[in-house]
Formats: sequence, structure tokens, C-alpha cells
Amino acid sequence: MGSNGIVLFAHGARDARWAEPFERLATRLRELRGADAGPVSLAFLELMTPDLPSAVADQASAGASVVTVVPVFFGQGGHIRRDLPVILDQCRAANPDVEIRCSVAVGEDADVIEAIAGYCLRQASS
Amino acid sequence: MGSNGIVLFAHGARDARWAEPFERLATRLRELRGADAGPVSLAFLELMTPDLPSAVADQASAGASVVTVVPVFFGQGGHIRRDLPVILDQCRAANPDVEIRCSVAVGEDADVIEAIAGYCLRQASS
Repeated sequence: MGSNGIVLFAHGARDARWAEPFERLATRLRELRGADAGPVSLAFLELMTPDLPSAVADQASAGASVVTVVPVFFGQGGHIRRDLPVILDQCRAANPDVEIRCSVAVGEDADVIEAIAGYCLRQASS
Repeated sequence: MGSNGIVLFAHGARDARWAEPFERLATRLRELRGADAGPVSLAFLELMTPDLPSAVADQASAGASVVTVVPVFFGQGGHIRRDLPVILDQCRAANPDVEIRCSVAVGEDADVIEAIAGYCLRQASS
């Protein structure tokens, strides 16, 4: 039985420092999951590498039988509603033995919104 | 003494539904702060209105003496490092009696990253 991988899918930017919070997120997720749980990778829509097909292919090669793509976006705009489904279809066609799932964007989660609201509150009162 | 406003500064997108999480965030923040604490507004870098100068001017007109701008971005790329300081200078020049503060992007906060990591974990194990 293969492992269960997670790919954190982000937009990408020209400035390499833009990716730092995503790298911290991946590191924290690996800690929370433990060493045996399966791979955690980053993938980008544009301007940064790897792209999503490469990241999924890497996890498939490493033995993942399920890959969960988590869009690390706040809103579900055109990138998530229009671009991502096309890329996911490419990933599924290229990796027919892997179950490729996709969650809704992290910004839609109530706990994430609560954490951001708490941060805003601290900023305004400091 | 004026009130203490918060402007949630986001990128903007063509799809109006993209703004929904930001509207939920603003609503939640108003609940957490209480009715008397001061205004909470959204502002966008591009593709959506109002822009940041308009949102700050509105809060100034409504009597805010301090406005805290919180960039609701994950990473600190060119938009935050290069574009935002220029816009903030415009806001300060246009509203000399208002103290305009700016926090680091929400994606840099450890609690926000922890909430996103928890969300990713739930997605991969469901």
C-alpha cells in the first residue's frame, strides 16, 4: 500500500522570499504528520517551480497512492475555479494509478479565518 | 479622540466570489472587536474596489485617528515589499492627521500557519 502525499499548491511570485511562509507551512505539516505519513511538497501555478504536474509525478514515483492537493489561496477565483481543474485533469491522466484529491482553498476554512482575525486584532491593539 | 480603524488589504481578482473569505474575515473581526472599536474595511491592490487610498480616506472621514493596514497575503513578495510602501506613502500624504500603520502579511504569523497546517492535516486524513 502506498503512502498518502500532500501537495501545497500556491500561486508563485518573482521574489524568492515570497515562498518562505509556504516552506514554513510544509515544515510544520511534516512535523505534525510524523516521518512515516507520506510526502509533503510545494507546487506553484506560475513563476516558481515545481509546477503541480511535476510535484504530483514526484510523489507518485516515490510511491504515493493518494495525493491530496491543498490550494493555499485565500479566495477561490479564476486560478482555483478555472486553471486548477485543468491541471488536475492533466495530473490524473499522467498518473492513472494515483488517486488525486483536491480540497477547497485554505482561506475558506473557518479555523483559518479565525486565526487571521486574531492576528488582525493583535495588530490593531498593539 | 478618534477611533482605531483596520483595513484588510488584499490582492483582488476578476471573479467577485474571490472576495468572499475576506468579507467573512471582516465580519468576524467586527464581531471580535465589538461595535464601538472602530471601522473594519477591505481594500484591494487591483481588479476590485475600493483601493487602499479610498479605504483609508473613508476611515479618516469617519473619524479614525489611527488606521492599521493588515496585508492579507501569504507571502511578502513584490506587492508587499515594493507596491504597498508606495501606496502607504500616498495615504500618509493625503491624510497627514491620521497615523497609518502597517503590519507584516498575515501568512507570516505562526498562529495562522498553525491553523493552515491543521486544515491541511484534516484534508489529507479525511
